[in-house]
Amino acid sequence: MPTLRIWTNYPPLTSQTGLLRDKIPQHRVIVGTPSGPDPQLADVDIAFGQPDVKQVIELTSLRWLHVNTAGYTKYDRDDVRAAMRKRGAILTSSSCVYSEPCAQHVLALILAQARRLNDSWTDQHGARAWPMVDIRSQCTLLNDAKVLLIGFGSIGRRLAELLAPLSMKVMGVRRNPTGNESIPMIAIDKLDEYLPWADHVVNLLPASSSTNGLFDARRFAKMRPDSIFYNIGRGDTIDQAALRKALESGTIAEAYLDVMTPEPLPANDPLWTTPNCHISPHTAGGHSNEIQRVVEHFVQNLRRYEAGEALLDLIPL
Amino acid sequence: MPTLRIWTNYPPLTSQTGLLRDKIPQHRVIVGTPSGPDPQLADVDIAFGQPDVKQVIELTSLRWLHVNTAGYTKYDRDDVRAAMRKRGAILTSSSCVYSEPCAQHVLALILAQARRLNDSWTDQHGARAWPMVDIRSQCTLLNDAKVLLIGFGSIGRRLAELLAPLSMKVMGVRRNPTGNESIPMIAIDKLDEYLPWADHVVNLLPASSSTNGLFDARRFAKMRPDSIFYNIGRGDTIDQAALRKALESGTIAEAYLDVMTPEPLPANDPLWTTPNCHISPHTAGGHSNEIQRVVEHFVQNLRRYEAGEALLDLIPL
Repeated sequence: MPTLRIWTNYPPLTSQTGLLRDKIPQHRVIVGTPSGPDPQLADVDIAFGQPDVKQVIELTSLRWLHVNTAGYTKYDRDDVRAAMRKRGAILTSSSCVYSEPCAQHVLALILAQARRLNDSWTDQHGARAWPMVDIRSQCTLLNDAKVLLIGFGSIGRRLAELLAPLSMKVMGVRRNPTGNESIPMIAIDKLDEYLPWADHVVNLLPASSSTNGLFDARRFAKMRPDSIFYNIGRGDTIDQAALRKALESGTIAEAYLDVMTPEPLPANDPLWTTPNCHISPHTAGGHSNEIQRVVEHFVQNLRRYEAGEALLDLIPL
Repeated sequence: MPTLRIWTNYPPLTSQTGLLRDKIPQHRVIVGTPSGPDPQLADVDIAFGQPDVKQVIELTSLRWLHVNTAGYTKYDRDDVRAAMRKRGAILTSSSCVYSEPCAQHVLALILAQARRLNDSWTDQHGARAWPMVDIRSQCTLLNDAKVLLIGFGSIGRRLAELLAPLSMKVMGVRRNPTGNESIPMIAIDKLDEYLPWADHVVNLLPASSSTNGLFDARRFAKMRPDSIFYNIGRGDTIDQAALRKALESGTIAEAYLDVMTPEPLPANDPLWTTPNCHISPHTAGGHSNEIQRVVEHFVQNLRRYEAGEALLDLIPL
C-alpha cells in the first residue's frame, strides 16, 4: 500500500496531531492552515477538514475530500462538483458522526416539550411557586401524537428508530421517496397537505437553494395553533421573521430551535424573547467524545478507501 | 347484573359526575365528601377515590376499593389489610394510568441531562452568550451509558422499553428478582455493589417503611462524581440533606428531582438553589387527558370485576 499524503485542517488536530498520526502511521499527515489557500495542498491525495473552496476546484492531485462536518454547503456548488467529477475525485462528509447526537437532541426536545421541563425550571429559577397543577394539565402523552419529519437522511432514520417505542404516528417528507423507507413517506410537494395533520413538525433539512426559506409565513399558517415546530436543520431553511410572527400571534404554539440566522444569534435579537420560542445554541450535534468520533470516522473511511470499498457518507457529485 | 352502589370522591367527578355516570348508567354513582368520614359509605359496594382510612377498616359492605392514584401509602397498613382480607375485599390502584407519563418523564430527564437543555435555556433567559462550545463538549451520547433502575414495577418496565433503542446498558434493582424480567436484574441487597457502576441512578421506589431514607449519605458516597441521580419515586426514599451535601461537595454530579419532602417544597428551601439540582414540581405523572384516563381505567376494571376477570393494578393484601 503506497503512502498517502493526507492534508488536514480539522481544528483539534492542529494541537493534537497524534490523534490522527498514531492511527495511520503508514501515511503522511500534513497539518494545514485553518482557512484560506494553503500551498501545502498542491500535491496531497486526500484532504480532511475544510480546505479553501477555490483551491479545491483548481487542485489536480486531490482525489478525495472528507469534510469534518455533517453539512457541506460550502462545497455544494456546480463548479466544485464539476471540477471534482472531471478528475474522478470523491466527496464525503462526517454525517454519521452527527446523526446519533442530533437524533437524541430532537428526541430530548420533543420529550422536554411534552413534559414541559422548561416551565418547571423557569419556576425553579424564579417564583418557586410549585405550579404542579398547571404544568401537569399541560403535559401531553406522546402516544398517538403525530410527528412529521421534514428531511429523511441519517438523522431522520435514526430518530424514527428512537421514536418507535413511544407509539407516535411518524411520517416523513423527502424530495424523492423510494417506497423502501422505515416509516410512511410523502414527497415534499405534498408538504402543505400534511402540515395541518402534525402535532410536531420537525425540520431536519440541510441548507440548499431549494430549502432556503421553505418555512415561510404561508407554511406556518398551515400548521395548527396547538402544533410545535422544531428546527435542527439549518437556520436559513426558515423565514425567521415569519416564525416570530407565527409565535406572537398564536398561529403555532411553540418553537424549539437549535439553528438560526445568524449564528451566534446576537444578544439583542428579538428571537431570544419571542414567546414560546426555546433556543439551544447549535448544540444538537455536540458530544463529549466528538473529536475522537470525527477522527475515527475518517480513519474508518480511509480503510474503506484503501480497500476499494464503498465510503460512508458519500455525496453524489 | 345487579346495580352496584359506587361511591367516589375522585375530585374531578364532584363537578363533572357525568364523566363516570354516563359510562355506567346501570349502576348508582354516589359523590362523597372530599375527605374525612362520610356516612354515605356505610352501604356502598365499591369506593373509587380516597375514602377515609379508619372508615375503610370498619365498613362491612365495601367489597372493592380502587384508589385514583398510583401510590396507596395511606391504605398500606396492617390493620387496613387485615380488615379487607377478612371480608374478602380487594384493593386496586391507578398505577397503569401513571406508568406511561412517568416513564416518558424519566426519559425526558435523562435526555435533557445528556443534551444539557437546562444550560441552553438558562443562557437564553440570562446572558444570551451563545455558549455553543462549552455546552457541546459537555453533552454526552447515551449509547453505552449505564442506567440503574431502582424499583421495577410498571414504570420501570415501560421505561426499559423506551430506553431500548438508545442501546444503553440498563440494569434493574428490585426486592425479589424473578429472573423473568425484560432486563438484567439484581436484588436490592446488592444495590451498594452496583451504585459505582451506574452513570444514571434512577430511583422509582414508592414510599414504604423499607424504602424510607434508602438513599442516605453512605449510598450517595458510593455513586461516582460524574454520575446523575433521578428521583421519580417518593421524596422520603431519600435523605434530602445528604443529597444536598453530595451535590455541594461534588460527590455526585447532578440530581433531577420530581418528588421531594415536603411538597410543595417551600420557596425558601435550600434544595431550590443547591448546585446542579433540577426540580420539577411532581409533574411526572401528569397529562392533559389524565382525568379521562383515570375514569376510563376504573370503568375498565369495573367491567373486569363484573365479568369475574383479574383486575388491573391489583394490590396483594
